[in-house]
Amino acid sequence: MAAKGLRLVIVGGGAAGISAASTTKAIAPETSVVLFSEYEDVAYSPCGIPFVHGREIPNFEALFLQSRQHYADVGIDLQLETRVTRVDLRERKVYVGSRAYEWDRLIIATGFDYERPDIAGSDLEGLHYVKNIRRAMEFDRLLEQIKKVVVVSASPLGIEMAGNLARRGLETHLVDESGWLMSEVADPDIMQPVEESLKSLGTKIHLGTKVLGFVGSNGKVKSVKTTTGELDCDVAVMATHKRPNNLLAREAGLEIGSTGGILVDDRMRTRVDGVYAAGDCVEVIHGGTELPVQGLSGSHAYSQGRVAAANAVGEQRSYDPVFIPWGMVGGDVHVGGVSLGETLHKMLGIPHFVAAATGISRARYYPGVTKVRVKLIVEPKTLRVTGAQMAGGEGIKERADFLGFALKRGATLEDFAWMENVYSPPIGALMEPIALAAQAGLTQVKQLRQA
Amino acid sequence: MAAKGLRLVIVGGGAAGISAASTTKAIAPETSVVLFSEYEDVAYSPCGIPFVHGREIPNFEALFLQSRQHYADVGIDLQLETRVTRVDLRERKVYVGSRAYEWDRLIIATGFDYERPDIAGSDLEGLHYVKNIRRAMEFDRLLEQIKKVVVVSASPLGIEMAGNLARRGLETHLVDESGWLMSEVADPDIMQPVEESLKSLGTKIHLGTKVLGFVGSNGKVKSVKTTTGELDCDVAVMATHKRPNNLLAREAGLEIGSTGGILVDDRMRTRVDGVYAAGDCVEVIHGGTELPVQGLSGSHAYSQGRVAAANAVGEQRSYDPVFIPWGMVGGDVHVGGVSLGETLHKMLGIPHFVAAATGISRARYYPGVTKVRVKLIVEPKTLRVTGAQMAGGEGIKERADFLGFALKRGATLEDFAWMENVYSPPIGALMEPIALAAQAGLTQVKQLRQA
Repeated sequence: MAAKGLRLVIVGGGAAGISAASTTKAIAPETSVVLFSEYEDVAYSPCGIPFVHGREIPNFEALFLQSRQHYADVGIDLQLETRVTRVDLRERKVYVGSRAYEWDRLIIATGFDYERPDIAGSDLEGLHYVKNIRRAMEFDRLLEQIKKVVVVSASPLGIEMAGNLARRGLETHLVDESGWLMSEVADPDIMQPVEESLKSLGTKIHLGTKVLGFVGSNGKVKSVKTTTGELDCDVAVMATHKRPNNLLAREAGLEIGSTGGILVDDRMRTRVDGVYAAGDCVEVIHGGTELPVQGLSGSHAYSQGRVAAANAVGEQRSYDPVFIPWGMVGGDVHVGGVSLGETLHKMLGIPHFVAAATGISRARYYPGVTKVRVKLIVEPKTLRVTGAQMAGGEGIKERADFLGFALKRGATLEDFAWMENVYSPPIGALMEPIALAAQAGLTQVKQLRQA
Repeated sequence: MAAKGLRLVIVGGGAAGISAASTTKAIAPETSVVLFSEYEDVAYSPCGIPFVHGREIPNFEALFLQSRQHYADVGIDLQLETRVTRVDLRERKVYVGSRAYEWDRLIIATGFDYERPDIAGSDLEGLHYVKNIRRAMEFDRLLEQIKKVVVVSASPLGIEMAGNLARRGLETHLVDESGWLMSEVADPDIMQPVEESLKSLGTKIHLGTKVLGFVGSNGKVKSVKTTTGELDCDVAVMATHKRPNNLLAREAGLEIGSTGGILVDDRMRTRVDGVYAAGDCVEVIHGGTELPVQGLSGSHAYSQGRVAAANAVGEQRSYDPVFIPWGMVGGDVHVGGVSLGETLHKMLGIPHFVAAATGISRARYYPGVTKVRVKLIVEPKTLRVTGAQMAGGEGIKERADFLGFALKRGATLEDFAWMENVYSPPIGALMEPIALAAQAGLTQVKQLRQA
């Protein structure tokens, strides 16, 4: 069990890298831990950036979680603004240019990069990718001087940016090729209230609209060409698909999976002894489909970092297939879900039916009550729930967590239809919306069987 | 399966009786349904009453859920202000005075009565029991004219009343014999923030204080004598223990359980063929201890009514042992839990340890974030979680529902420690507080095993 004097090198200072470093020091403090990041900062919350732009959060300083000193204090050697240029798996060294660092265990946590579209003008100044907090601070100052923004892609980030920039008072356009918002994850009916909320904030939404290129003047973007017309802009926010940053791993000879994520087993081990990977640069197994997935949440990255570190220092810790509870706020609407929605069930040809209901978050008469729409996607033979999608005004995150836990354990419509629930007027209605959806589903089943 | 032309009589118009009537009409519309209630109204939310007194809800009309006409429309014969005086199980009749009504199936849903303390002055005018909405309307008008209230018993209702009356601007005293609030259900550390919140609203709290009697003048209460002194008051709110109203059932010869609740099996059947009971007048089995319990929530009563009705008209529906997720708002603090708290584990001598942590409800920097303290009570050998208690500012009801579902299915510390959770700054923190508590528990276990 003991891992005395092990030298651990971590490449990457995001959620996975930082949690791996902290976990190592917590469970095996004698391990020497060096963490490399190409960036100036670690331990801030990049997910908070859109909300600072929208002034929901007063300033960027609020997003920092820990000081550099904290990491020094616990014995983590942070090497910031230091780009690892090469990993040598045979020599067990990482290289920063010509300088070599030896390791006994290596954790690769190189995160993601945004897909950069291969279209005209994509190298123009004024195309902004939301990631690094220093660039976000500069961008925020720029927002003071400009009027028009086009947000490319109605991804979760695109929706958060579009809502917050509209709230900030900018003329904001959101462009997406699909027929509805967040089409990769969410069902159209679930996203409809988000679309309405964004519009009421002033966001102009262009669906079914493909970006063809960027038009510049003096090297700076001045409009976005799309299949439905040209949109003037001062900047374009590129909320494009996140791709695993697998460059170092690939060049080192590690295996890359079908999604572009580094291949790891359930211990977050690559196929090379002593080498682990975690976070947005890996792919993991989806518990519902058993297919590899990548690009999950900061919370997933954090857990994967913990698992990688625990195994690196000699513990036995497995990372289970994921069911991916998700949630977010689009405009003023909370949406969320677990596993696959109705749309993905259809696309993948998975047999299913939908059990849905609209309940309420508190007693009908209590101030602050909101509707909570719940869709359960159900396997027809066993009545196991294989996915869920929700929209409402509160309690969506907690319900998604619950459903994630329950779906992983094979919960059925019966289980949810007869669940006990808290009833207290200020915080919960007589009937839990999840139970109502399940009851509606059982009624459908009964009618079908009687027909 | 068919139940053509059955005559169903329901005694009681609370949540259990009303849900039994509605369920019957939904699944077997050909059944004749007569529902008797001694009160003037059905289908309102008694749980909302304290919040109308506190003006969180503007008026009592808001608490009505359905009109009488609605029940007539679906074919339910409501007999209001009609007290059933006798049930004859052999003749299969209920009597209202000398008038007899025949039934093929009977559902007894006679609810609860407050314990009326057998002490001096308990028959004085001005002792108010919160139950009937018409009496609550009268009481609300009385509150306009008075200054001082003593609330007897820091039960959930007592706490809601004390907070709301203080908010209304009345001099409010809350008296309880125990050393902390809601001691029958909750742990002292969980209730500490509620106590502080009530105090900040102006409620004067007298713990460790037993009520000895009521002192009157001209037949009206003017003070409450306690073991720690005499408290002047214009009215006393009696938020005493709720006892099953088993009178009719007992007189009819039905079996009564150890808690005073009518004995029913898992189909809500009494031992007499065709006779069911549901709601606060019955006792059901607690899933953790396998002991009988009574006096649960309106949501439980509603579900029991559904089960009783389904079985009465020929379906096969069982009511599972309960784990009792609960939640409420005391002052401005949300508290809740599932099954037994630490205190009850101790009192019942159940082997356990406590895994606790304080997390947050949103990202640390996001407006509206509140602390969420979670205590999991754990069986030491299996690490199964056998109870939970929480305090926070949001998301307590949804977490209690989740934990209720999970505990019923035997979830362990490991399950919770590695649960996936939504991370999105406006609605959820990187680490779910339930997971943090479980992780803290696993760390304790590891340290113990290493020691």
